[in-house]
Amino acid sequence: MKIGVLGTGIVGRTLASKLAELGHEVRMGSRDAANEQAAEWAASAGDGASNGTFADAASFGEVVVNATSGTASLDALRAAGAENLSGKLLVDVANPLDFSGGMPPKLSVCNDDSLGEQIQREFPDARVVKTLNTVNAGVMVEPAAVPGDHNIFVCGDDDAAKAQASELLEAFGWPERSILDLGGIDAARGTEMYLPLWLRLFQAAGTPQVNIQLHIAGR
Amino acid sequence: MKIGVLGTGIVGRTLASKLAELGHEVRMGSRDAANEQAAEWAASAGDGASNGTFADAASFGEVVVNATSGTASLDALRAAGAENLSGKLLVDVANPLDFSGGMPPKLSVCNDDSLGEQIQREFPDARVVKTLNTVNAGVMVEPAAVPGDHNIFVCGDDDAAKAQASELLEAFGWPERSILDLGGIDAARGTEMYLPLWLRLFQAAGTPQVNIQLHIAGR
Repeated sequence: MKIGVLGTGIVGRTLASKLAELGHEVRMGSRDAANEQAAEWAASAGDGASNGTFADAASFGEVVVNATSGTASLDALRAAGAENLSGKLLVDVANPLDFSGGMPPKLSVCNDDSLGEQIQREFPDARVVKTLNTVNAGVMVEPAAVPGDHNIFVCGDDDAAKAQASELLEAFGWPERSILDLGGIDAARGTEMYLPLWLRLFQAAGTPQVNIQLHIAGR
Repeated sequence: MKIGVLGTGIVGRTLASKLAELGHEVRMGSRDAANEQAAEWAASAGDGASNGTFADAASFGEVVVNATSGTASLDALRAAGAENLSGKLLVDVANPLDFSGGMPPKLSVCNDDSLGEQIQREFPDARVVKTLNTVNAGVMVEPAAVPGDHNIFVCGDDDAAKAQASELLEAFGWPERSILDLGGIDAARGTEMYLPLWLRLFQAAGTPQVNIQLHIAGR
């Protein structure tokens, strides 16, 4: 499949590399077509790897992954172009972390809204699925790095899009039983607002390679 | 030990009953000394159980538990009186859930502040420990109702107070290994902002008897 990955940071590169390893043709998009990290990535990630602008990557992809910084995601998606996202699964893994006030970061949107919802509202023809934002890049593509039956969440208004996103998660190594559907895209408020706890769990554990498992009475 | 429990809702009654079962003398406090739920509770909970105003309960307790509604907690603690909280462990289990806009509730404070921090700031001589707010009342006092090695968090600026709170948690049935110290009272931002995710986990599970376990790479 052709996949556009927006974002050249550690999350974008990690996801793009895993998708290329899995045999997908991947185009990494950035604000500037000459972005060095994207060019280096494309040069090292095999025949199916390429890079370009956000619009190049989004128009290339049958599926688009938003791996930009959360505070820059809406601008990046505007640059990608609504017409290049229309009808496509848009996997949103970004967190609206605002580091401008120092550590710990705050969320630039929360409580009565979320980045996932903002994206779905602004791009109503994209099929947005919020997922993977509750783990770090390494765990996203290698869940077995963390022991135990820990969970990953999917939120979105389109069930077929969530099923397609779940197939990608399974290809990344997430067992089907680990994937929890939390409902509509408004549930992104829950997974994004988990970040302040995630940051403290990371600090307490001494490693960002952590995740949580849901336990349910009677199961 | 003498313990004051502020709040007459399901959380307050559940905690007060468990503490009485464990042999503590418990006084339940409410805004109105004639509160029916508190009087009924005191009449049914054995010899060491009593009820009164917030100030009665706080002055009675060597330890005070804030189990009021989060949006009412500061007012309840003002009524309890700073002089009746001074130097004492104040176990804060409340969540600042605001149901005024319907479901799902929003948080009345979050992101750059938390209820736990507000309480510690307003009552600097109280030794505030935020804990138990990430599970429902039943799980608070019977963690084994949920299978697995799930975790409970403690946050607070006073290590001795956190140790004392942890002893109470262990008496409730939380194994020592399950109790995670997340740092200062500012970490209450993390555990309070987890509530929107908890609500979705509850919905997905079909029961509020849920909790999460932290898994860490290499452990």
